[in-house]
Amino acid sequence: MPSSYDIPAVQTAAVVPESGGTIQVKADHPVPTQEQLAPNECLVKMHCTGVCHTDLHAALGDWPVAAKIPLIGGHEGVGEIVAIGAHTIDSPVKVGDRVGIKWLADSCLNCEACRKGREQNCDQAKLSGFTVDGTFSEYVVSYVRHVTPIPEGFDSNAAASILCAGVTVYRALKYSQTSPGDWVVLPGAGGGLGHLAVQYAKYMGLRVIAIDTGASKKKLVEELGADHWIDFKESKDIVAEIKSVTGGAGAHSAVVTAASASGYQQAIEYLRTGGTLMAVGLPGDATLNASIFFTVFKSISILGSYVGNRQDAREAIDIAARGGVKCHFQVRGLGDLEE
Amino acid sequence: MPSSYDIPAVQTAAVVPESGGTIQVKADHPVPTQEQLAPNECLVKMHCTGVCHTDLHAALGDWPVAAKIPLIGGHEGVGEIVAIGAHTIDSPVKVGDRVGIKWLADSCLNCEACRKGREQNCDQAKLSGFTVDGTFSEYVVSYVRHVTPIPEGFDSNAAASILCAGVTVYRALKYSQTSPGDWVVLPGAGGGLGHLAVQYAKYMGLRVIAIDTGASKKKLVEELGADHWIDFKESKDIVAEIKSVTGGAGAHSAVVTAASASGYQQAIEYLRTGGTLMAVGLPGDATLNASIFFTVFKSISILGSYVGNRQDAREAIDIAARGGVKCHFQVRGLGDLEE
Amino acid sequence: MPSSYDIPAVQTAAVVPESGGTIQVKADHPVPTQEQLAPNECLVKMHCTGVCHTDLHAALGDWPVAAKIPLIGGHEGVGEIVAIGAHTIDSPVKVGDRVGIKWLADSCLNCEACRKGREQNCDQAKLSGFTVDGTFSEYVVSYVRHVTPIPEGFDSNAAASILCAGVTVYRALKYSQTSPGDWVVLPGAGGGLGHLAVQYAKYMGLRVIAIDTGASKKKLVEELGADHWIDFKESKDIVAEIKSVTGGAGAHSAVVTAASASGYQQAIEYLRTGGTLMAVGLPGDATLNASIFFTVFKSISILGSYVGNRQDAREAIDIAARGGVKCHFQVRGLGDLEE
Amino acid sequence: MPSSYDIPAVQTAAVVPESGGTIQVKADHPVPTQEQLAPNECLVKMHCTGVCHTDLHAALGDWPVAAKIPLIGGHEGVGEIVAIGAHTIDSPVKVGDRVGIKWLADSCLNCEACRKGREQNCDQAKLSGFTVDGTFSEYVVSYVRHVTPIPEGFDSNAAASILCAGVTVYRALKYSQTSPGDWVVLPGAGGGLGHLAVQYAKYMGLRVIAIDTGASKKKLVEELGADHWIDFKESKDIVAEIKSVTGGAGAHSAVVTAASASGYQQAIEYLRTGGTLMAVGLPGDATLNASIFFTVFKSISILGSYVGNRQDAREAIDIAARGGVKCHFQVRGLGDLEE
Repeated sequence: MPSSYDIPAVQTAAVVPESGGTIQVKADHPVPTQEQLAPNECLVKMHCTGVCHTDLHAALGDWPVAAKIPLIGGHEGVGEIVAIGAHTIDSPVKVGDRVGIKWLADSCLNCEACRKGREQNCDQAKLSGFTVDGTFSEYVVSYVRHVTPIPEGFDSNAAASILCAGVTVYRALKYSQTSPGDWVVLPGAGGGLGHLAVQYAKYMGLRVIAIDTGASKKKLVEELGADHWIDFKESKDIVAEIKSVTGGAGAHSAVVTAASASGYQQAIEYLRTGGTLMAVGLPGDATLNASIFFTVFKSISILGSYVGNRQDAREAIDIAARGGVKCHFQVRGLGDLEE
Repeated sequence: MPSSYDIPAVQTAAVVPESGGTIQVKADHPVPTQEQLAPNECLVKMHCTGVCHTDLHAALGDWPVAAKIPLIGGHEGVGEIVAIGAHTIDSPVKVGDRVGIKWLADSCLNCEACRKGREQNCDQAKLSGFTVDGTFSEYVVSYVRHVTPIPEGFDSNAAASILCAGVTVYRALKYSQTSPGDWVVLPGAGGGLGHLAVQYAKYMGLRVIAIDTGASKKKLVEELGADHWIDFKESKDIVAEIKSVTGGAGAHSAVVTAASASGYQQAIEYLRTGGTLMAVGLPGDATLNASIFFTVFKSISILGSYVGNRQDAREAIDIAARGGVKCHFQVRGLGDLEE
Repeated sequence: MPSSYDIPAVQTAAVVPESGGTIQVKADHPVPTQEQLAPNECLVKMHCTGVCHTDLHAALGDWPVAAKIPLIGGHEGVGEIVAIGAHTIDSPVKVGDRVGIKWLADSCLNCEACRKGREQNCDQAKLSGFTVDGTFSEYVVSYVRHVTPIPEGFDSNAAASILCAGVTVYRALKYSQTSPGDWVVLPGAGGGLGHLAVQYAKYMGLRVIAIDTGASKKKLVEELGADHWIDFKESKDIVAEIKSVTGGAGAHSAVVTAASASGYQQAIEYLRTGGTLMAVGLPGDATLNASIFFTVFKSISILGSYVGNRQDAREAIDIAARGGVKCHFQVRGLGDLEE
Repeated sequence: MPSSYDIPAVQTAAVVPESGGTIQVKADHPVPTQEQLAPNECLVKMHCTGVCHTDLHAALGDWPVAAKIPLIGGHEGVGEIVAIGAHTIDSPVKVGDRVGIKWLADSCLNCEACRKGREQNCDQAKLSGFTVDGTFSEYVVSYVRHVTPIPEGFDSNAAASILCAGVTVYRALKYSQTSPGDWVVLPGAGGGLGHLAVQYAKYMGLRVIAIDTGASKKKLVEELGADHWIDFKESKDIVAEIKSVTGGAGAHSAVVTAASASGYQQAIEYLRTGGTLMAVGLPGDATLNASIFFTVFKSISILGSYVGNRQDAREAIDIAARGGVKCHFQVRGLGDLEE
């Protein structure tokens, strides 16, 4: 790795000029200079970036919290650190390191949430592609304390997709209060989050009930190790089927990524007593239409799990880097984002 | 204590003859004989019984689970064991012991829920005054494994009211994931469950925000040690007031006993990030109308907490017996139940 | 399965007549009749039994707690229930069921330890082949509440060896406070407990450093999935080697089954800060010669883990039954025990 | 509070010039200027400082880790921030704030230990009065991320003594795995750590068995709320007495601050099964001479608990500031340190 880098003055970047607006790819967006970096900031030359539903929320402005405008989106990317702001103290990374940028770009590390390890709940959290410019550009300003080192030999493209969906489902499974051999239900198992969740769940010794629809998704999740497949369009009674597969009692946990409310009430029904519903989806305005009576009577825990902290990100990346989890993705050019 | 007892053939009992029916006090209800007791059953000569809202649900039949009919209600009483069924093994109590009967009258101790300490979720759980006859009679059949020994010197009337409301709020607070000095919000703090919750919360070093209405309830909860009072009829903005009292961040936990759904969404708002909502109320058909977005984004945990197990009951009783918690109650005759 | 069984009057059994004495195989040991079984007792016709070091402790009388005399040893066996005592209530098993008998033959299910799920710490615990007669006979009296159902299709011989060593290491790993991908050190990895620990650890996503000696044990643990092998006779510095393999920090956990004290101090050295030492070995008189300074300074947790409870046994058996763990064992006749 | 401060060029400081040497009070020790402060550093004008046994270890050089030389000792003091280094980012405090300095002066906030909330185990931790100059001077350089804000109205002298002994015992009790009403044994209950431990334990609803010797310590701990007193010089059998007081089973937890090894084996004996031994003392070379057999057989947890992190410090201070805990201390001049 070079000890210094030639950093160009301008770059290509995909900019959303106004809330609800369309993305414009600009070839002459300025690149910050070393002198413009504040302490703890680093400039990352991107190798690749992922694209996620959340980027749509940011562009569309349909969440109850607001994005900055104008905005460069993107919150899962990998690149190389080419500069670090002067007066940075205790940096865990250095110029030349390959690192990942995730949704949680930075946090203060000093507030109660940060002190308790819930950095994602920091009041001053900076969110990539939402409250600070994200990864849809050639050079990105990020933060030495929160970038995730990428192990040598792990493909940048593969790593990028772990940094959002992977971290999110990994944390949800890690905190799902399950024991090895327990049953976890994964609605949407064939999707972007779901197919990673299947793999992390198998990696930690859980048994997986994968819910999705269609032959290709069935094939995918079964190849990834799912123990039971339910096609939600074909199943006559999903709750009854889950209970049957799990010996009558229901599943121990479910990771619900759905944007609609219906998945929550169903989970209360198919979970066994004492079960844990990990809520990770972020629908703009839906409510948890789950029965209070059965949540209490069955001693169900509903745990809101929001992305992950720095440690979760490192663990999720390390497992994937050792081959424990593989992401299915397509590689395309930055210019395609306007689509 | 006598080594044997004269057990009469008939007794006074308050019987609900049919679902939705009224209570009838009968003077000639039969008392089981020693020979009629199965292994693990004990006959308890009651000293007193409490009356609870749940008894109304049982009588009215408005819950999604069904009570037996005809039914003797009542699920919080104290009395003396006068007989134990033959062939009972490993009994933790003996004839002559003073014991409490609680909602959870018995469980199998062998199923997964029992093995994991969630006896209240046992599929074969027997519920006092609901699936088995309860405490509204002079003699009650209960179960040696689940009755709660009452420490010497602790008033039976006081103990009775701990056995339902006390155990329920004690367990909810014990599992509320709080540290000493943390803030807990108690809606309905001046009520039957609430005024006990205030005291258990103070006993374990929590700071209490008591919500209720009226001067007499304000006086009560402040005497019991509540740190802050909110009159929900007078407060202009309960969420803002809680945030202000807690230094801007919101409370760490809330124990929501409300039968309506509105308390849940409000709790999501006034809890700080990472906060815990203990759901203990059992409304027949309400749903958790809490925002999924903010449950996830704020990393809120919603934990269904259903009464308590044998250990919770002993701990709640022991704390009260040492004076840590005092119940405010009225003593009346069994005949008044028909009202 | 037959609805009733012909139970002979006498059987072959391996009896230790006095403390420190040798085992005598008797062909005319009496078999209890159905009428002699107390409530909760069951008579099991054995298919097979395992032999374990603990049986030697029992025979030799060199532990600080005493065995009954005369004694039939053996605490890990599988057989079929041929009779259940009259007046048994809430039995989770029935005549004809294939079940395992483990070290913890029975517990009261009512004391504080049992109520908290630590049945193995019950004051009234009955220990197979130690305080009650064990599995070295053709028919064994056991207890319906504590026998472990064996899933259909799972070989009885394989199941037997899980019931002691398997349960013990499974519980230790389950409570080792590790996350998926963490490093666990297994001294004695090629031995009876160790080779099962390697497999359970891999099943739950841990990375394993196996310590033992010799080419055949190296081959075994590597086939079972160990990530790193250390031959303790050849390694120049085990602590340094573990630190090197784990990126400098040391391992997250260790499961120490050793009967000598030296393994404990070494574990304090090779564990990373915040690491967990699971102590499962039961040497008669050794002490934990671990540095207090470094236990405190490194925030090490030393957790005594004693066999397992009913739930641990079912989980360990179920994982093995699905092929997650395979025991390496030899099948021999009961008469060989005298050797 | 003033917006800027006159900072003198020299100050009085108590300096240890060499390992094992005596303290020298110097009147002309230099004070750093604002320009000399690095990012994240702050200059604190001291109001007061505590003196602790650990300061002796630092001066005597008898620990297995080494202090810097020459050294200004002291690791529990309170003062006012008079300057903050340029380029400090995300500071949770500002010039004019009254703050406490504790043993853990700073940590990197980025390593695995810091990410997991065990900042005290950070490899780059800076220790007041040990690896960086401490509080025995008029002006001290500390670190904005780790100083502890002192609530308005809380006496500086009282706060200082909480910052070491208070935080240490508070964290040990917080992680002692006890429920409200459980029994905790506090050897040395009348001492510097002990008398604070009694109060924190009572604050969180524990029952306290205080062990120490002499009438004045008995009087002190009973005034502070201890539930049972044992004079170790007069008790014929401490283990038997603890078992008797706790109903035969033994205590749930013990916080062992002793510098000798004997307290550990005794704790294994008087703890009930499943009990927790919190190890907080830091003797230079003693070992945990606890029986492995009984640690395992009784399922005892031995948890090394080393001072506390930032959150523990704030919680311990906040409880004391509200009057929950009062330190007994003497106020003397800095010149007295040479004694």
